[in-house]
Amino acid sequence: MEKPDLELIAARLEGLEETIISKLIDRAQFRVNNSVYLPGQSGFRGSEGASLFDLRLRFQEEMDARFGRFHVAEERPFNADLPESQRTVTLPPTCLVIDTLERVNMTGAIKKAYLQMVPRFCPAGDDGQYGSSVEHDVFALQAISRRIHFGAFYVAESKYAANPSSYDACVASGNTGELMKMLTRKEVENQILARVGEKAERAQAHVNTRVRTRIDPKIVMDLYRDFIIPITKQGEIRYLLQRAQSVH
Amino acid sequence: MEKPDLELIAARLEGLEETIISKLIDRAQFRVNNSVYLPGQSGFRGSEGASLFDLRLRFQEEMDARFGRFHVAEERPFNADLPESQRTVTLPPTCLVIDTLERVNMTGAIKKAYLQMVPRFCPAGDDGQYGSSVEHDVFALQAISRRIHFGAFYVAESKYAANPSSYDACVASGNTGELMKMLTRKEVENQILARVGEKAERAQAHVNTRVRTRIDPKIVMDLYRDFIIPITKQGEIRYLLQRAQSVH
Repeated sequence: MEKPDLELIAARLEGLEETIISKLIDRAQFRVNNSVYLPGQSGFRGSEGASLFDLRLRFQEEMDARFGRFHVAEERPFNADLPESQRTVTLPPTCLVIDTLERVNMTGAIKKAYLQMVPRFCPAGDDGQYGSSVEHDVFALQAISRRIHFGAFYVAESKYAANPSSYDACVASGNTGELMKMLTRKEVENQILARVGEKAERAQAHVNTRVRTRIDPKIVMDLYRDFIIPITKQGEIRYLLQRAQSVH
Repeated sequence: MEKPDLELIAARLEGLEETIISKLIDRAQFRVNNSVYLPGQSGFRGSEGASLFDLRLRFQEEMDARFGRFHVAEERPFNADLPESQRTVTLPPTCLVIDTLERVNMTGAIKKAYLQMVPRFCPAGDDGQYGSSVEHDVFALQAISRRIHFGAFYVAESKYAANPSSYDACVASGNTGELMKMLTRKEVENQILARVGEKAERAQAHVNTRVRTRIDPKIVMDLYRDFIIPITKQGEIRYLLQRAQSVH
């Protein structure tokens, strides 16, 4: 989008909630399967040292890179050294002020948080479904990352645009605690939490529990409160800090 | 499953409905983008001759093959000459009677049907979102294919197990029209159609139409009636015909 349109940005973020919830539910159909996250236990011939999870993520991103996914701001890669895009992707101009999108890449924090999240929303234990588990891990991770980066870029830019002098002053003071306070809208966060809880409830209202595992909607709310919202705001801070340097 | 359990099979097929509906809705967020299906228009450096859709499907299946997806009966590949699995996949014994799973591969018919389906459930026109379109095409195609093959294998085996002598006689007569009649349960098909219509309605009941395209539930019912159910039954026939040869 060429101008930050807060209503449209909020609607996009809202639309991504359904995607995140459905990917979490898909992953929760398999047990934690902890061994897929352990290096040296992939049993993947030729790459025995990595975890199956890391291997799947790298294969997925190598494919995605060839198809041009990472030209888009909100799609930041978890891996470095990916192949070049084999497509020419022409994107409309954006309102973002940033020299290189990689200056706001929150994937390190996202991956760490995701690995803490898995035992919260998947049933404990091992069912041997390792291939399916990591396939759905990667989709869930990409959906969460898209939401966080979309917020980090576009929410931060729209907040800045609404109040540039205050943000300029705060960034210049170097007080990131103050910046975090400026960015935080507690009532909006509470609305988001209530909404994702309702959506998780609704999405599973007619589940046949003989064949489908249900996620407690409370857990989806916890994941938003403990990981998704805080990392989005850290991303917003990173965006605003680099923004000051990009402008000058 | 070691013994055909019709109730469990029906529940699995039912669970796959949500997946298909959500993948169709995801794809419908982009326009038809017809050029992605045309050979020679991919603009994909090094593979200019293929369509972007065919390229994405091949890349996806090459990755999936390395991770062992096609060891599972209901996951049949659309492409030949895929790389070997780099994982050793140990699966529980199944009730299926088949020498090699590829004897029931319906992907040719599925792909042809899918390409006819796209203009029915996606908004007309071109929005330039080619990479996302083919990404979601592949997910929708895989979900539909999983449902069709799961039915072709397990529904056919369970129907056979309930009435082996009649099926043996019908297969021996070579009358596939009669076999189709034996397999068809019109009242079950009508139940499925009503259920997928309701699910498509419910899944979109709270959609924010400013940012999300809605699919008419009637169209999902049509896709099931015109493509998904008929191809599943063709797959069941193929399974039963090969079954007679595998037993002897």
